[in-house]
This record gives sequence, structure tokens and C-alpha cells, in this order.
Amino acid sequence: MSKKLFMFEKPLGMRDTLPFLYEIKKRVRQAMIREIETWGYELIETPTLEYYETVGAASAIDDHQLFKLLDQQGHTLVLRPDMTAPIARLAASRLYKDGNPLRLAYNANVFRAQQREGGRPAEFEQIGVECIGDGTVAADAEVISVMIAALKQAGLRHFTVAIGHIGYVNALFLEILGNEERASVLRRFLYEKNYVGYREHVKSLPLSSIDQKRLLQLLQLRGNDQTMENARELVHSEEGKRAVDELCELSSALRLYGVNDAVKIDMTLVSHMSYYTGILFEVYAEHVGFPIGNGGRYDELLEKFSRKAPATGFGIRVDRLIEALGETEEEVAIECIVFSQERFAEALELAKTKRQEGKRVVLQHILGIHDIDAYSKKYQPITYLLGSDGKGE
Amino acid sequence: MSKKLFMFEKPLGMRDTLPFLYEIKKRVRQAMIREIETWGYELIETPTLEYYETVGAASAIDDHQLFKLLDQQGHTLVLRPDMTAPIARLAASRLYKDGNPLRLAYNANVFRAQQREGGRPAEFEQIGVECIGDGTVAADAEVISVMIAALKQAGLRHFTVAIGHIGYVNALFLEILGNEERASVLRRFLYEKNYVGYREHVKSLPLSSIDQKRLLQLLQLRGNDQTMENARELVHSEEGKRAVDELCELSSALRLYGVNDAVKIDMTLVSHMSYYTGILFEVYAEHVGFPIGNGGRYDELLEKFSRKAPATGFGIRVDRLIEALGETEEEVAIECIVFSQERFAEALELAKTKRQEGKRVVLQHILGIHDIDAYSKKYQPITYLLGSDGKGE
Repeated sequence: MSKKLFMFEKPLGMRDTLPFLYEIKKRVRQAMIREIETWGYELIETPTLEYYETVGAASAIDDHQLFKLLDQQGHTLVLRPDMTAPIARLAASRLYKDGNPLRLAYNANVFRAQQREGGRPAEFEQIGVECIGDGTVAADAEVISVMIAALKQAGLRHFTVAIGHIGYVNALFLEILGNEERASVLRRFLYEKNYVGYREHVKSLPLSSIDQKRLLQLLQLRGNDQTMENARELVHSEEGKRAVDELCELSSALRLYGVNDAVKIDMTLVSHMSYYTGILFEVYAEHVGFPIGNGGRYDELLEKFSRKAPATGFGIRVDRLIEALGETEEEVAIECIVFSQERFAEALELAKTKRQEGKRVVLQHILGIHDIDAYSKKYQPITYLLGSDGKGE
Repeated sequence: MSKKLFMFEKPLGMRDTLPFLYEIKKRVRQAMIREIETWGYELIETPTLEYYETVGAASAIDDHQLFKLLDQQGHTLVLRPDMTAPIARLAASRLYKDGNPLRLAYNANVFRAQQREGGRPAEFEQIGVECIGDGTVAADAEVISVMIAALKQAGLRHFTVAIGHIGYVNALFLEILGNEERASVLRRFLYEKNYVGYREHVKSLPLSSIDQKRLLQLLQLRGNDQTMENARELVHSEEGKRAVDELCELSSALRLYGVNDAVKIDMTLVSHMSYYTGILFEVYAEHVGFPIGNGGRYDELLEKFSRKAPATGFGIRVDRLIEALGETEEEVAIECIVFSQERFAEALELAKTKRQEGKRVVLQHILGIHDIDAYSKKYQPITYLLGSDGKGE
């Protein structure tokens, strides 16, 4: 049986957001959403709970990370572990009607159960967009560009968007390794960014030295201008070369958007989100060990909801973005008027006037205060309207 | 076993919020929060999941309405059914340190499991405040006044705040009925607003005709100016008379706040929230069958979290408020620029310029569009930058 809880405890990985952090979150959220809206994306909300069988299964989050519960009809529900699958459900069922592109956006908390204390948060906010029904590389370029614009609006200065193509990795692995089982082992090393393990595993494979070398060369396909040319040479299949073509087209578009300084090509990029089918990306910021966001093309997810449509999108983790911004305090100035009963009307008028000027003003009855010395430290300035005002009225 | 689900289905009582409704929600939310902030309330967030043993038990929501799940340590978790108990936990553990008043606010979704389809939503947004550590009637007056101000900012015109005092009802019932069991039966009739049932039950009680008459007179203590005087006469105990005194004091304060037009006294008011201890209130709007919000004083809840403190607050249900506002559409104008590859750079510049003017602009590659006739209906105006511009460049 479980231990006795203290009244103050919160479930594993659950956090409170205190006022100073709330202010930062609010500013970041508003700045990002304002930018996203000017690109014509429309915000929506979906339920916190979805069916495990449908959205839960489509979400591509490991089963042990799902918060599950049973409803009274005997169905398993999940707290949504991401927003892409719920939006796919919503788009497929109600919004994506005429085969035309649909631009949706969200800011929402998502849930991932954690195994131990001191680990990652089990609930965190994501802000993102989904561009549904548009299979052009122009849509990928737009999604990456609106993400970069939104991050800049939030105040982020030093960050990199690593861009890869899951179709490239899959094509290369398939033509060398011959089957999906072997490919998936290697993909896992890449996902974990365990390049030492990758090298060792490659060397242990029963392959020609040429093929081993090709697999090892993949690890060099990162960063510099030559990357895409080298990538094109390394792969032989049509699919692989087509993936490189898409990345070249993307790269040109991003140059026109004026954001290519912030991006770098990384052909080794793969994702834990199994629904990606094409271009995919991760955002890294200085001083933050994990990606602050990611995204990519998922052309087969809508099909699970009975409506075939290409799609691409991104999601930014607000907690990690705030960590990257490095702001730890954002106290908003609050004034205070302390009054006694006799001068209530006067205090009320003063508060009203100040509030109409847009100031934040606490109006506090003196009898509600326990320790005036402590109380007066919280507010600035503090005005006392106590007792008779001395004019003998 | 349960039926097979369609991919599109959502759990019982769960709703999507489509773009037009999102815009209304956003406007209402921003208007209310802006007003609440000018009164010096600070916004916070708490986790969606709390422990059943602690916050779940303190929340005063019926057990069968709680969404419960088990964590890996064997504890039962709940999706928060209200925000008052989580804020009490947070305030008691981290914020309420010096015994001084603390003003906190929130906008958050809360969860109440529903028994059947077509019923009430199982997840809905609340906006509210909690004023913790202030036992004065001035605090009750402030909470009601900031609520009224926030509702007006949201655009609500015709609404009434019914105000009662649970201490009055309890004192009257106790002095007439002699014990809590009998009192709780009568309170339930009042909570259900089943006045016919109340009358019948009173007549069935083994009481003197004078006492029966007193219990029936309670039902008349609503609305007009004489109410408080009549209430004072009806009750004999100290506690009962003190409750009337508090309501008189509240009434004077609300007059100074200039909001007494919107309030009426209703001595029959009781709540399903069992933690209320004093003044309590419900908000009614035209054309909406349920209260759009409620609140009151809960001086004993913080004690459950090991820190004694008086407190008062309100919560408004955003879905019912929007129903009361009667607005069904709030489409935001979105422009569109449709381009072909050759004129991408030109289209991009045009979109950038318009976005900098604050306009919402979709930039759409012509190859991403399936049905241009349908697509062009969604946006206004729509600009086509296709093919050569005819100048032979």
C-alpha cells in the first residue's frame, strides 16, 4: 500500500506556476500567439481527455508515458500526450472538408507520465501550429518560418533549427540493410544521439566495408553547405534522392524567408514521434540540454482518422523556451491602498482612478492585515488612508 | 465489453472549441483577466492532476463526479474538479506565510464526470479569484465587486448576483430543528430550489405551528429591501443575527462600490459546495438556466492544509457566460495571398508588409490547393500572384 501523503504534496512531475513565472509564461504565450495569428493560423482547443483506442493510439507517445483512466462505459481514456493527434481527429471529422489547406494553432498542456521524482514535468504547455492538406515544400518552409518568427517575438535570440528528412534516413538504411528491423535498431541510436553506439553497431553488422563506410558517413552529414551534395551522393535510391531534392527546395525557400541563418541541415535527425514521414526538425537553444521544440511532416496520420491528407506542423515547449530565455523574475508592480472603515469611500475612489489608468491596485481594509510591516514590503507604492484625515470633518 | 469506437468520437461530455468560439472565449477571458489584474489579483496555475486524498477530498465535489486514476505509486489521482481547493493547497504550502491577505486569480479548466451523453460538459473553463487571509466583510464586498466589474468588461449586461449567508440558514435551522441531520434534509431542498418539496417536508415535521411558519417564512426572505429586517426578526440566535449584520455591512459596501443594482439578497441560498462558511452568492444571467458563476466565504478550508486562514472568492463558468452573452459567431477576417513558385518572393514581401500592419494573412502555394473555388470563399480579400506578371521580365 502507498505511503501517507502530506497535504501539500503534488503528484509526480506536477508543478504549480507562481505569479512571477505566470507573468513570463503569459508574455511568451501572447507574443507567440500574436505572431502565429498574423500568419493566418486559427486557434482551437481540444479536450484534455481523449479515447485511448483512437487518439491515444495515434499519438506516437510510448504507452508507459500515457496517463490512463477508465470511463463508466468501460473505455480507456488518456490525458492527451500531444496536440497533433487530437487536431488530426478534429480536422478529419469537422474541419477538413474540401481538400484545401487548413491552418490551425493551439496553446495547450499535454501530459506524459514520469517514472521518478526530480525528473521531467509530467504536464507542460505546448504552443504550435498544424498546416493540414498542403503537401508542398512551401508549407514545410512556412511552418519552420512561422516558428522562428514566433520564437523571435518571444525574445529568443540564440537558437538553431536542425532540419533533416526521415525519408532520407529510411531510404539509406533500407538500401544498405535490406529490412526494417535492422533499420529500426540503427534509427534508435540516432534518436538517442548515441553516435558511439551507432558506430559500434555498424561495425558489428555483416556488411561490406563499403556499406559500413556509407553508414558511418551519414554521421558526417551535418551542418556545412556541402551537406546536401554529400547526402545526394551517399544515397542511391529514388526515394533518398527525392528527399534531398525536397531539402534543397526547402533551403531555398527558407533563404527567401530570411531565416536560413537560424537553420542547419542534419541528415542524422530522426524523431521519437513515429508519425513523421518527410522533412522534420528540432529546435535547440543555448544552455538548454533538450530540444525546446520540434516538428515535421506527417502525411499519413490523417488517414488513421479516415481522411487522407498531407500535413506538417511544429510544437514548442513553453517551459524549455522560458529556460532558454533565462528570465527568472518578472514581478509586476502592484500598488496598494490600505484603508480604515471611515475612509472606505475615499480609498475606493482613489483605487478606481488608478485602475482606470491601467495600474494594478490592491485595496486593503486595515483589519484584514495581520502584520503590516511584512505586508507593506509586497507592494509599491503603498498609500494609507486611515482614521480621520485630521481636518476635523 | 464496450462498443467499438468511431475514430472521431470524444469521451462523454468532452468538447472541441472551433476557431469562432475560440475567438469569443479569448476575448471574454482577456477582458475579465485584465479587470481582475487591475484589482491587484495575481494569476497562478496549478496542475491538472492532484491527489484524491488531499485536494480531491477537500474539493467538495461529489465523489461520482471525480475523474480518478491510479499512479504508479498506488495513489489515486483526480483531475481537479475545482480551483479553490488547489489554490488553498498552494497558498497554505508556499504563499500564505505572514498571515496577510493574498489575492490570487486563475483561468483554468476543471473536470466533472458526467453520467450520460447530451448532458453537461465534463470539462469547462473557470475564471475566478481567491482572497485568502482576510476575514473582513470588505473582502467579501471586493470579491463580489471585482466579479461584477469583470462580467461587465466581458460585455454582460443583464445579470443578478443573489447573495445569502450559509451561517444564517444553519442558525435558523438549528434553533428550530435542533439537530444537523434534520437541517441537512431541508438544506438539500433549498439547494435543489425545490420549494414545493421544502414546504411539504416542513409540514410533515413534528413542530409547533409557529416553528413551521418560521421555516416557511424563510422562503419569503428574498429580493426586496425589507428582506434583511425580516430576516433579523425571524432568527433568534446570536449566530443568526450576526449573519444578518454581516449582510447589512456587505450591502452598504456594495452600495459604495456602485454595484447594488446588480445584487439581491436571497436568504434561502445554499450551495452544493460544502466548504462555504459565511456570505455566499450565485450569478444569474438572462436566458441561462444555471448560475453562470458562484462564490463565497470559506474560512475553514485552509485549515485542512494545516494553515488556518479566512478566505473568500468567486468562480465564473466561461461556457455559461458565453451562452449568456448570446454571441454565436465571431469570425476574424483573414486575408489570403495565393502564389505560384515564380512569384514566391513577391508574395512573401506582400504578406510580410500586411502582417506588419497587424493583418492576418495566409500565404498559400497554388499547388497546395485542391479546390480553388471552395478555398477562395474562406478568405477575404484574396490576392492571386500567379505565373509571369505579363511584363515579360
